[in-house]
Amino acid sequence: MPVSTHQSQDPSLVALGAAIRRLREAKELSQEALALMAEVDRSYVGRVERGTNNAATLTLKRLANALGMTLAELISEAGL
Amino acid sequence: MPVSTHQSQDPSLVALGAAIRRLREAKELSQEALALMAEVDRSYVGRVERGTNNAATLTLKRLANALGMTLAELISEAGL
Repeated sequence: MPVSTHQSQDPSLVALGAAIRRLREAKELSQEALALMAEVDRSYVGRVERGTNNAATLTLKRLANALGMTLAELISEAGL
Repeated sequence: MPVSTHQSQDPSLVALGAAIRRLREAKELSQEALALMAEVDRSYVGRVERGTNNAATLTLKRLANALGMTLAELISEAGL
């Protein structure tokens, strides 16, 4: 049986990542496009969407704004 | 004229910190008490309230919950 390489994931971060992915796909944006708009790395968007990155406030705000919403709206969408 | 030793502060972090301080004082909690409830250092609460710390999502959620609210409510209180 292979050893899992997954990091342990916090349910809140998983919910937040799922919300970002859902909102991004609803806008038909690629991870690359969202990353460019929010001025973060594409790989960073991937980690946040998988719930393996405990994003800092200002980065999360840039992602929310790039998705056309406030940070409060994004957090609320994630149920946090 | 003395050289300023202040770090540059982001307006969003300043607004967030001011909201946390206002909500903490409304509950008549000391920084120490809030820090204990949220399981963070007292000095960390001070930095967040001054807007000099770009807090991570999970830490901010613990602070919000210790203040008796959701993370979305705290972020909304800060106008972000």
